[in-house]
Amino acid sequence: MTVTTVDENLLQTLAEPGEDEIASLDAWWRANNYLTVGQIYLRANALLREPLTAEHIKPRLLGHWGTSPGLSFIYAHVSRLIQRTGQRAIYLAGPGHGGPALVAAGYLEGTYSEVYPKVSQDEPGMSRLFRQFSAPGGIPSHVSVTTPGSIHEGGELGYVLVHAFGSVMDNPDLLSIAVVGDGEAETGPLEGSWKGVSFINPARDGAVLPILHLNGAKIAGPTVLARKSPQEVHALLEGHGYEVIEVSGADLPGMHKRFAAALADAWGRIRAIQESARGGDWDGTRPRWPLIIMRTPKGWTGPDEVDGTQVTGTWRAHQVPLSGVRENPDHLRLLEEWMRSYRPEELFDDQGRPTAVVTALNPAGDLRMSASPHANGGVLTKDLDIPDFRDYAIDVKAPATEKAESTRKLGELLRDVYRANDDRFRLFCPDETNSNRLGAVFEASDRGFMEQTFEHDTAISRDGRVMEVLSEHNCHGWLEGYNLTGRHGMFATYEAFAMVSASQTVQHGKWLQESRRLDWRAKVPSLNVLLTSTAWRNDHNGFSHQGPGLIQVVLTQRGDIARVYLPPDANTLLSVADHCLRSRSYINLIVIDKQPQPQWLTMDEAIEHCTRGAGVWEWAGTDDGTRDPDIVLACAGDVVTMETVAAAQILKERLPQLSVRVVNVVDLMGLVRPKDHPHGMSETRFTELFTDTVDVVFAFHGYPGAIHQLVHGRPDADRFRVRGFVEEGTTTTPFDMTVRNRASRYHLVMDAINNAARLPRGAADLKDWCKAKLAEHEAYVVEHLEDLPEIRDWSL
Amino acid sequence: MTVTTVDENLLQTLAEPGEDEIASLDAWWRANNYLTVGQIYLRANALLREPLTAEHIKPRLLGHWGTSPGLSFIYAHVSRLIQRTGQRAIYLAGPGHGGPALVAAGYLEGTYSEVYPKVSQDEPGMSRLFRQFSAPGGIPSHVSVTTPGSIHEGGELGYVLVHAFGSVMDNPDLLSIAVVGDGEAETGPLEGSWKGVSFINPARDGAVLPILHLNGAKIAGPTVLARKSPQEVHALLEGHGYEVIEVSGADLPGMHKRFAAALADAWGRIRAIQESARGGDWDGTRPRWPLIIMRTPKGWTGPDEVDGTQVTGTWRAHQVPLSGVRENPDHLRLLEEWMRSYRPEELFDDQGRPTAVVTALNPAGDLRMSASPHANGGVLTKDLDIPDFRDYAIDVKAPATEKAESTRKLGELLRDVYRANDDRFRLFCPDETNSNRLGAVFEASDRGFMEQTFEHDTAISRDGRVMEVLSEHNCHGWLEGYNLTGRHGMFATYEAFAMVSASQTVQHGKWLQESRRLDWRAKVPSLNVLLTSTAWRNDHNGFSHQGPGLIQVVLTQRGDIARVYLPPDANTLLSVADHCLRSRSYINLIVIDKQPQPQWLTMDEAIEHCTRGAGVWEWAGTDDGTRDPDIVLACAGDVVTMETVAAAQILKERLPQLSVRVVNVVDLMGLVRPKDHPHGMSETRFTELFTDTVDVVFAFHGYPGAIHQLVHGRPDADRFRVRGFVEEGTTTTPFDMTVRNRASRYHLVMDAINNAARLPRGAADLKDWCKAKLAEHEAYVVEHLEDLPEIRDWSL
Repeated sequence: MTVTTVDENLLQTLAEPGEDEIASLDAWWRANNYLTVGQIYLRANALLREPLTAEHIKPRLLGHWGTSPGLSFIYAHVSRLIQRTGQRAIYLAGPGHGGPALVAAGYLEGTYSEVYPKVSQDEPGMSRLFRQFSAPGGIPSHVSVTTPGSIHEGGELGYVLVHAFGSVMDNPDLLSIAVVGDGEAETGPLEGSWKGVSFINPARDGAVLPILHLNGAKIAGPTVLARKSPQEVHALLEGHGYEVIEVSGADLPGMHKRFAAALADAWGRIRAIQESARGGDWDGTRPRWPLIIMRTPKGWTGPDEVDGTQVTGTWRAHQVPLSGVRENPDHLRLLEEWMRSYRPEELFDDQGRPTAVVTALNPAGDLRMSASPHANGGVLTKDLDIPDFRDYAIDVKAPATEKAESTRKLGELLRDVYRANDDRFRLFCPDETNSNRLGAVFEASDRGFMEQTFEHDTAISRDGRVMEVLSEHNCHGWLEGYNLTGRHGMFATYEAFAMVSASQTVQHGKWLQESRRLDWRAKVPSLNVLLTSTAWRNDHNGFSHQGPGLIQVVLTQRGDIARVYLPPDANTLLSVADHCLRSRSYINLIVIDKQPQPQWLTMDEAIEHCTRGAGVWEWAGTDDGTRDPDIVLACAGDVVTMETVAAAQILKERLPQLSVRVVNVVDLMGLVRPKDHPHGMSETRFTELFTDTVDVVFAFHGYPGAIHQLVHGRPDADRFRVRGFVEEGTTTTPFDMTVRNRASRYHLVMDAINNAARLPRGAADLKDWCKAKLAEHEAYVVEHLEDLPEIRDWSL
Repeated sequence: MTVTTVDENLLQTLAEPGEDEIASLDAWWRANNYLTVGQIYLRANALLREPLTAEHIKPRLLGHWGTSPGLSFIYAHVSRLIQRTGQRAIYLAGPGHGGPALVAAGYLEGTYSEVYPKVSQDEPGMSRLFRQFSAPGGIPSHVSVTTPGSIHEGGELGYVLVHAFGSVMDNPDLLSIAVVGDGEAETGPLEGSWKGVSFINPARDGAVLPILHLNGAKIAGPTVLARKSPQEVHALLEGHGYEVIEVSGADLPGMHKRFAAALADAWGRIRAIQESARGGDWDGTRPRWPLIIMRTPKGWTGPDEVDGTQVTGTWRAHQVPLSGVRENPDHLRLLEEWMRSYRPEELFDDQGRPTAVVTALNPAGDLRMSASPHANGGVLTKDLDIPDFRDYAIDVKAPATEKAESTRKLGELLRDVYRANDDRFRLFCPDETNSNRLGAVFEASDRGFMEQTFEHDTAISRDGRVMEVLSEHNCHGWLEGYNLTGRHGMFATYEAFAMVSASQTVQHGKWLQESRRLDWRAKVPSLNVLLTSTAWRNDHNGFSHQGPGLIQVVLTQRGDIARVYLPPDANTLLSVADHCLRSRSYINLIVIDKQPQPQWLTMDEAIEHCTRGAGVWEWAGTDDGTRDPDIVLACAGDVVTMETVAAAQILKERLPQLSVRVVNVVDLMGLVRPKDHPHGMSETRFTELFTDTVDVVFAFHGYPGAIHQLVHGRPDADRFRVRGFVEEGTTTTPFDMTVRNRASRYHLVMDAINNAARLPRGAADLKDWCKAKLAEHEAYVVEHLEDLPEIRDWSL
């Protein structure tokens, strides 16, 4: 951890750029703007060597100008800061459609050509830079995985601050510049993420500098923050805990001077906060971190009016301010004037290379924000030091002889992961770490919290590194930022409420999928999501807490990145967790309940089972393996596994002539054909487990349709009869939940009888017996209504 | 619209409750607290007629005490306000786990017994009230659909303000009391919803009074807002635009006096704002609406310390403060003291009926918040006046002879729906109404916006009723609140970003499903979601904008409430939209792109097609209907319908002997078996369309797995070969998107050949031809890389 003294002279120099510096800042910015406009408009004549004609213009004009000049203006000034101070920084562009500005920045810094040699720093390269933008086979109009220096996709809005805060946790030397657009600032996730400062410890973490860029408009109208009184906006951000610094205007070089002063002020405050915290001169209270509000016109430096209508400063500047360039000579002339207003001849030499006045601004080597290793976190990733998970095993003498809260064992493992990796592992959870039985982690670390704590608080302090905030968006996003900068973690949440952040799971999956296609992006730690407090066991929480939706969401992601595990007990959970924590660039979804549950497998069996992903539980069935059984009872998920084993036991006792095979599936993706998922088991293996003709009664934790889609294309997939969660729920006992969803042991027995290849005598009687048992249950529920009876039948 | 004058005397009386009033307030509150504790603990001895013993205690203690006394305290005071003023109000309890307090409120007001006669206002009824709570077959521990007076489920946190703001739009006489818990206040959606005041017009809309209830803790620790400095919290809420009124403490009767004064102050300000706006004396600026911050200890009036540990005021009071009551005589004694501290003998008479001092507080009839018709909006719902949708038809001479932006026609219909229903219809959209081609609505209404507007703004004013805010959470939630209070609307959004609010779609679906089971809940207008800017047509937006995930989510919902429509053109869209706008208590998902697209059906054909949900397009195929075709080409979704018709045309021209049937599906749920969905087509009809043996090549808008799960159980479901979105995307042409996802016309032709029942000569050649076409496309893309070529093959 570097502790430097803030040099007052340095701060003053930073705050007051000299003429040369302003010239360089302005040149770099003009070059960036020129390249931005070129990307939107030009297919040829990149350097404007000849008068602009319609043939030089792209056939279809796509892109976003409005936010770009503000983004590049800030970028230029941060580059100067880096040059002067050696500060390590990354840049997160919340207004994601400022893609061309960020691409142009990487290009001017040389990084773009290093990563994509064909886009060289010369005229052909510039031409290619222009032509690839918003073009088929090219790059999107927003900041994306392909943009060097980015850990933040410009797609779904709202996550720039969560990514920034995640990136600086346990990353003391990093400054993350997070530009928040005023459109994005209207989203719930963004508004909920200002509070990140309540969780950042200046001694141990790096800093986020939010820059709220109020340019006034979004796609089609004004934004709320831009039209509220400045006093209100100021109060709002002060209320979030920031020291607000405001810069406003469009005058030049005035804006360069004022922004340089504001940035110097902000950086000086950040360093002072960090020095005081790291030097020991700190009372432990939450610092007031600086934040800059920058008000500049949307589309700044673009055409002011078009066809007599005001464009700059309005929503009309959002995308393509001059839309008729190919047809309208007036628009063509305006475009040429606009581009020439940047004086490209000063910015690029004869070969099209950036001139010295431009490149003078670029920081050296990997201090360039587009080249920061923190924005390609895989290169910084160190393996986790994981203790041997076998040491946490439950000693299972025989299947289901005891119950245990499986996640408690995981908590113990995670506790020791915390202890061994105090610089690179965190758990993120919406206030439920204890509720989810992971509380052992508090033996190793408190919850992190920078606001006041009181005497009677427990396991919470500024030094804590377990992250609890009642916001799935924050938890998920912080973990993404932490992962993408090369560190490891887990997000644990209630199953039903995992849907709150489902879109983040989708978008992060897309990021990982894209990044796997880029050689230069190193793999990062996987995003591990643990769902507990599941649909089947929300006993006193009602229907609103019951939903296995996230499995369905992850199943739609590609095999390259999506993994879904349903360990049925503690030892399988430990094995799965160990595997996930070691993996890279996946979405690992682990689903298991937190309540006491039967333990099935010894650790050795669990490892074998998890390695294969699925297996026959011989001890549970009556199948001797010499020929196909009469029926296969399959299961995936803890509660339904218990019902399946119970069903098999009923069949064993009451219909012993029926040959029943019990198959348990841990790795859900194993069901998929190998051509569709790398975990997909071979057809031979599939047939070994499920035969290729015998009917399969499959009890599944999630929605039944998931299994139907997974086994599609497998031999005679129609023979799979799936029971699962069918959106029947209420406040009730776990066993009643299985009855309501028609996935109880009695339903499974009846399904087995209805579908068995061969029916021994007595089957009809057994069906009647099952019906009677269900009627008995029904009567019992009615009788004991409102009495919360002991949980009958909830055992083997 | 009522305009009354704020009577200064009335305000003063309100602000200074007399002794009798305080006695009544306090008695009602004590009665509520007593019933709350009873619900959590007691199975018998409801009135504490005998000394409490372990046998009177429930076997399992579940529930949430912590937030409850604060909720009932506020409720009591609002009841007094209603009594004194006749104000119509509803109560939304953000801290959802305060269920027992809200149930107790309805019980004390008599509504609960009216709705559930067995839970009568006497001792047996009270006993039942206690026993049903958090019990199987009973009610959940949170506010739910079963709670009279509620439009807000206490499940997933974060939506209390969006529901409240939606409820008051076009509802000028309604006051929605929205209690925000400090746990909930940490969520992104809640933080993003304070800005509702920037969209509420005091002349035309009702008012929301947010009460931020800072009791200090959530499940397992302190909350951010409770531990920030009060000055910061004040600044934050002022920054959001509110006039902040603070009340703090635990002293009695002091708190009654201070809260009464605060509420009177807030109500007076609300009425003054409304009067000034409605009386014409208003400069049109956004008012500063009042907001109350109430700081009371968590678990207020509960046991202060337990086993020497502080409980009240800490997270330990969140659920069950005395957990060992059945085993620990000390806890039992504390519980009895606690319950007797409310002096039940003063609150309930010999029969267990609330005494006069308690019932004196209840407002009359449907002014009781638990009986408000606004909280059972179906009873207030008036049908929409919908112009004849046929009048907006596109005149289709023959299939695919012209292209049109289908959603533009919908925009025209919606414009006229706006005109005819200026009190009961709104469109909600994150800033994309124009982008989604629905801009015709602006001929009937501006966007609504209460912040400053400038001269160059367009279609935006305080009188506007088109709701645009860059927040899917706000749009979705406002519409829910609008629907649940009996009004109609539509939420239009980009397909990919519909996942942002997917959890709201899930939760609202659960609400609707539950409400269908309750006789007393009248059906409300359906939640209509229009997804446009779809996965297949995000030409310059990249992979992050491409995802059909919401279909997958809605498919998991039950047939009672879930509907998914994929109209392929404008006339089918109009027919579907008309149907959806007239429907009740469904989630209607409509998916269609906004770009110019071929038009297939005349209006008469479209109506017939939509009525049946699916149909054979004879003109597209070569099937003469006399016998089963060799192959069925099916499709659902606009882009894939075009590819399917194009594939059929290729087959017709190049392999005329092959008998091809083309089936288009509009109503996706028609594919499901009738036992699983009311729209499910009969097996006869299914076989008429798809035969029962011929292979089906199905081109689907969404993920292929969706079709596999939908057709499960249909005759030989394995014969369905589905093409769809397989998570391949980038910045590219629409045709290239179909190629990348292997759903192009050439892929479909090859699939048809690979799976046809009978192969005419020439099939092998045609496959080669298709491969050549794809190779040609590939070459073309490479050649024109970065050149945004005209969209080849993107037509018939």
